Amino acid sequence: MKATEPLQTIKPEVRNLHPYSLSPDRARIKLNQNENPWGTPPEVKQETLTRLVDRPWSRYPDFIPVQLHQKLAAFAGWTADGIIAGNGSNELIQAVLMVTLGPGKRLLISEPTFALYKQIGTVLGAGVLSQPLTPELTYDAGLLKKSLQDQRPEVVIICSPNNPTGCVIQHADLAELLELTPGLIVVDEAYFEFSGQTAAPLLERYPNLVVLRTFSKAMAMAGLRVGYLLASPELVREISKAVLPYNLNAISQTAAEVALEMYASSLKPLVEKIISERERVFSRLQGISGLLPVRSRANFMVVKSSVEPARVFKELLRRDILIRDVSRYPLLKDYFRLSIGTTAENDQLLNGLEEIFTGRNILENYEHHQKEA
Amino acid sequence: MKATEPLQTIKPEVRNLHPYSLSPDRARIKLNQNENPWGTPPEVKQETLTRLVDRPWSRYPDFIPVQLHQKLAAFAGWTADGIIAGNGSNELIQAVLMVTLGPGKRLLISEPTFALYKQIGTVLGAGVLSQPLTPELTYDAGLLKKSLQDQRPEVVIICSPNNPTGCVIQHADLAELLELTPGLIVVDEAYFEFSGQTAAPLLERYPNLVVLRTFSKAMAMAGLRVGYLLASPELVREISKAVLPYNLNAISQTAAEVALEMYASSLKPLVEKIISERERVFSRLQGISGLLPVRSRANFMVVKSSVEPARVFKELLRRDILIRDVSRYPLLKDYFRLSIGTTAENDQLLNGLEEIFTGRNILENYEHHQKEA
Repeated sequence: MKATEPLQTIKPEVRNLHPYSLSPDRARIKLNQNENPWGTPPEVKQETLTRLVDRPWSRYPDFIPVQLHQKLAAFAGWTADGIIAGNGSNELIQAVLMVTLGPGKRLLISEPTFALYKQIGTVLGAGVLSQPLTPELTYDAGLLKKSLQDQRPEVVIICSPNNPTGCVIQHADLAELLELTPGLIVVDEAYFEFSGQTAAPLLERYPNLVVLRTFSKAMAMAGLRVGYLLASPELVREISKAVLPYNLNAISQTAAEVALEMYASSLKPLVEKIISERERVFSRLQGISGLLPVRSRANFMVVKSSVEPARVFKELLRRDILIRDVSRYPLLKDYFRLSIGTTAENDQLLNGLEEIFTGRNILENYEHHQKEA
Repeated sequence: MKATEPLQTIKPEVRNLHPYSLSPDRARIKLNQNENPWGTPPEVKQETLTRLVDRPWSRYPDFIPVQLHQKLAAFAGWTADGIIAGNGSNELIQAVLMVTLGPGKRLLISEPTFALYKQIGTVLGAGVLSQPLTPELTYDAGLLKKSLQDQRPEVVIICSPNNPTGCVIQHADLAELLELTPGLIVVDEAYFEFSGQTAAPLLERYPNLVVLRTFSKAMAMAGLRVGYLLASPELVREISKAVLPYNLNAISQTAAEVALEMYASSLKPLVEKIISERERVFSRLQGISGLLPVRSRANFMVVKSSVEPARVFKELLRRDILIRDVSRYPLLKDYFRLSIGTTAENDQLLNGLEEIFTGRNILENYEHHQKEA
């Protein structure tokens, strides 16, 4: 049998898909993945490690992590039986789509947005309907309403604040959308802590609303992979059928509990620093000729650039700073994305951009670098 | 909108499914989940914790955990680009089925077996073809060959050693099956360390073979959720498209590396103890009238019981011992399953069973217990 023969068993929609991947570039200042630049607070880490010593690693985690669900319920202002904790929110996006989508079903998204929604919808054989954000890179509520009525998708995903643009859906619009469709509306709130806004209060009224959250951003635990989902208990019961048993390892479960216990004292102050740094970076970027930053409610922003984004990326990498070139996303041909770092990191980023955009030797530097590579 | 309305969006095959769940019973002696009873060796735990202190938890794990893949490659005798590490092998079963199955596709399994295969196949809308093991609870290779030829399933899953019966597929049979089908044959080797037998050497020859492994059993890390998949690099490339980015958290990744480094000195001796205990328990059970143990190549066995398995379960639970009542599985109406524990745990189990099966007051005890409950 030739190695390629078994590939016939792979569904064509999967074979046609490009694998999701990330450039393996590394740099000292890492502003490409919207992580919390301050790191996990040492007291959170220490308390987690202390609890881990006694916990038996060889035993399966709880079938349902009741303690964590209860702490999440208190944190989110929702009911514990309307919560699923997962191995990152990615897993929960997948579970929601697995129980709802398949051939002949439709998923509606606004682009540019997080690439995984389309990827999973496609693997499941569903039709993925994509509509653009407005030219100002905000949600087009009118168009969303029209698409809902005309196309009747089983699921809509709204990332709010949206990755990579930072825009949020207005709650009046969201409520109208929830009224309009019997399908599910998933609001991915991976960055909600930086926006001061959440759709969670609408859960009580709208049983077709699903809210997703993560510990990878504000909670400073991207390495531990914890996410959670809020929805009506009836819906949670069905979505759980596509969540694998023991999906959340015992260590991350413990760490998440500690983070929730210490949120107010240890993590919220970091979130506030990131928000004020975001506003400072925005103002400074406005002062650089050739750059047009886009207002964001998250811990990152996209910036329109008069210099090709791939070139800005390379120039910054030479300065040991890693950002994200998002120029292949729809509508973002001229944009790059930067995560908000620590104060010192942001200063170095801003200095780097000022150097690049004052035009000093940028072409020469770039060509020199090209020759070296 | 009523809370039940959005449930219309859930696929009917999902709504009809019973959620996978586990009774929340607890006992001091836990012989119900086939875990490693000796626990994670302290030196493995300590080394992992030491490495964790310095590792930044707030950063995403590596996109591809290259170091772990290389260590797994050395351990399994396969190539690193033919490996995927996952959040438990459950996740990898799901990924394989997601890229191959959907409505109109077919999955073939032999029952009784691990319940998750059917569950995931059903959620994906595929037809699940089930054939029975032989009356001796072994794989029926002749019937498997016939089913492959008649039904042409896209995927066959063979759990070897099989959970819950402990039987293995013979390699001559497996090779014949691999020749017969252009579809995938997935051999779930969650318990292979206890069997002294692996299908991994067949990977070189058969590009339609997928081997699954886990760190939850012999490796004593059920709480950390690590599994891995071995297949041809071509197939791995496609299956990876359904594996979520950053699926394996940084901590479990580190722990798995340490376990592989210390396998020969710290874990293999535990595996050997478990194998010799398995044989001792088997012999002792043979001597108890009313019990008929089934030979197993794993760290558990099923036992045919002249007393109703639910009653044996309750009697043992009264003695603070938790086993698994498997009497609802096909062919296993009269059986319970026990995991092999430590020497002391096995002694208590055997003593408990001897008490129960010598008939001393079993009915009275049982009825007394019922009234109390």
